[in-house]
Amino acid sequence: MVSGERFIITYLLSGTQQDAFSKAKDICIEQTVEFPANLLTPGVIQDHVVGRIESFEFYDNNYRAEISYANEITANELTQFLNVVFGNISIKPGIKVESIDLPPTLLNHWKGPRFGRAGLRKLLGIPKRPLLFTALKPMGLSAKQLAELAYKCAVGGIDIIKDDHGLTDQCFAPFSERISLCAAAVHQANRETGNNSIYVANVTTAGGHMIERAREAKERGAGGIMVAPALAGFGCMRQLADDDTISLPIFSHPAFIGSYVTSSENGFSHQALFGQIMRLAGADAVIYPSFGGRFSFSQTECESIAKATQAAMADIQPIFPAPGGGMSIDRIPELYQVYGNDVMFLIGGGLFQHGPDIVENCRYFRKLLNEFAS
Amino acid sequence: MVSGERFIITYLLSGTQQDAFSKAKDICIEQTVEFPANLLTPGVIQDHVVGRIESFEFYDNNYRAEISYANEITANELTQFLNVVFGNISIKPGIKVESIDLPPTLLNHWKGPRFGRAGLRKLLGIPKRPLLFTALKPMGLSAKQLAELAYKCAVGGIDIIKDDHGLTDQCFAPFSERISLCAAAVHQANRETGNNSIYVANVTTAGGHMIERAREAKERGAGGIMVAPALAGFGCMRQLADDDTISLPIFSHPAFIGSYVTSSENGFSHQALFGQIMRLAGADAVIYPSFGGRFSFSQTECESIAKATQAAMADIQPIFPAPGGGMSIDRIPELYQVYGNDVMFLIGGGLFQHGPDIVENCRYFRKLLNEFAS
Repeated sequence: MVSGERFIITYLLSGTQQDAFSKAKDICIEQTVEFPANLLTPGVIQDHVVGRIESFEFYDNNYRAEISYANEITANELTQFLNVVFGNISIKPGIKVESIDLPPTLLNHWKGPRFGRAGLRKLLGIPKRPLLFTALKPMGLSAKQLAELAYKCAVGGIDIIKDDHGLTDQCFAPFSERISLCAAAVHQANRETGNNSIYVANVTTAGGHMIERAREAKERGAGGIMVAPALAGFGCMRQLADDDTISLPIFSHPAFIGSYVTSSENGFSHQALFGQIMRLAGADAVIYPSFGGRFSFSQTECESIAKATQAAMADIQPIFPAPGGGMSIDRIPELYQVYGNDVMFLIGGGLFQHGPDIVENCRYFRKLLNEFAS
Repeated sequence: MVSGERFIITYLLSGTQQDAFSKAKDICIEQTVEFPANLLTPGVIQDHVVGRIESFEFYDNNYRAEISYANEITANELTQFLNVVFGNISIKPGIKVESIDLPPTLLNHWKGPRFGRAGLRKLLGIPKRPLLFTALKPMGLSAKQLAELAYKCAVGGIDIIKDDHGLTDQCFAPFSERISLCAAAVHQANRETGNNSIYVANVTTAGGHMIERAREAKERGAGGIMVAPALAGFGCMRQLADDDTISLPIFSHPAFIGSYVTSSENGFSHQALFGQIMRLAGADAVIYPSFGGRFSFSQTECESIAKATQAAMADIQPIFPAPGGGMSIDRIPELYQVYGNDVMFLIGGGLFQHGPDIVENCRYFRKLLNEFAS
């Protein structure tokens, strides 16, 4: 019943060499059999089910251990994969997931993004330059007001116009009304400009309702959907990506996920969570707070995310990094130096801050980009 | 459109008084409109949608701020409620959710647990004493072997026998086969002993599949279901609790949730996450690692959880604290002093460690409890 194929998780472990090695041995048990090691008898469980330390070395003031697990213990389920990677040990201090390395057999079960970078570029008709991305806000505007804003952003040349992540189904702007009006507004603008801008509906909510909202978004003309997987569940985002009746690009939002990356001694590295896991879970673009904005990610962390969105991963396609979070338009040249062409620049509040006329602000954003992006 | 009713979240903020007060002001914007404050114009958005600092004071080497939000911005959705409470600020260091205080109108939307302590006691026919709880393991056993173990535990007098949280749908013990055999084994034991032990199936997986598994568990005779909401989504656990076709007690598991409580400066307090939020999200019992086991929660933290499982919360019923995680049978008298009668003692590996005969170990566990619990 066991193929012998294994996947490898690299953990950073804090403490003395002895402490760190104890942690590595503990992970092998805790994440699999969760059973007294002295009671395990020789056989498949001890030989295959229990995790295995493949390497252990001093690294960056900590210790780094590669631990392998049998493919079969994931049951090919993304939720159970995450459970094996970091379920119970999330409660134990001093353990951080640095990277994941999965064999093609396992990668192919989760397929990655439906569109990926190439698919999104084709959909938008933009072969090479960075994509322009904004958010409809503030919460409290009516559906009609949000749609007017969406129209202006599309006329001004923004490629992707999404709901702010706090917009769900509030009485101010109920879901059905909001997505109908916003999608129609962006289509209207496209007819006038000849562009292919899309409206992205935030569908984050509980499981079954999220599928319903995504289908409704599709029917009413949205060009993409946004999900915050830490709120909705990574497995639920994967289900949206797998659903042929939806078939829309997925934008993952980082709401509620920060606690997994804010500690240097617990959680995930930025590249593993925002690069590798979002990609596995079906995001076509991953939104994260860029360095220099109002959040705390460093430039190195942001670059590691961008790198992981395109690192080789069997047949899993690269996805777009979408840095945002307090960006101003004037930082675009600097960000372009770091990210190059394969990026989505998410500017929300900064687009309003630039001047009183939204359409003009959008045009300035687009013009600035055209000046240096090839 | 705005009722004027608000709910209050208490945050602990680190830094100097000035830093902490800046954080409080920032939270009011970041968690609601996420929009430049200088561009907001007077009206409903500024008066109601933006968060409001209700109090700010020095507390326990940090600052404590009570911030209120309009009920309406949650759209009565649990996922969006969590987003308002800690969505984007999860990515900002130095902010921790200490407690939540919701008005009855909002509490009643989420109903809390379907059974609660009283319902679970009625189901099990145990009016007063602590409940005995164990887990089937190790992963890698066949469905038949797990069922044999379930039978022995039930014969030995364990009240609640659950899947280990890593058991999902592995080839070793596929879901349908496992739950059928384990439920049947526990029913068989009950016929012999006259007890009302229940088998609890782990249904943690992606959204829609989780509902299907829970329904199948019900049909095949499981007496409860287990969910790890950090993996499956809090909203999805709430959907299970609301589903009248399932109507089984829910046991929440802490896998993957640790990063929200391991930092003193980010995330949630133990009482807020394991006590208040699990209860809102529909858990009838909350599993967490007890002090003195192989995890790191302190006695004070564990007591705060137990307290929050029964603190007044409008019509929301109290739920069972279920401390576990490396407990030995011999620690039961000590734990009883702390938790009293309204507790579920979860002993997994420790039950196997006690001696070679599982039935005898269970009987010893039960006997020990009978000696001092009234």
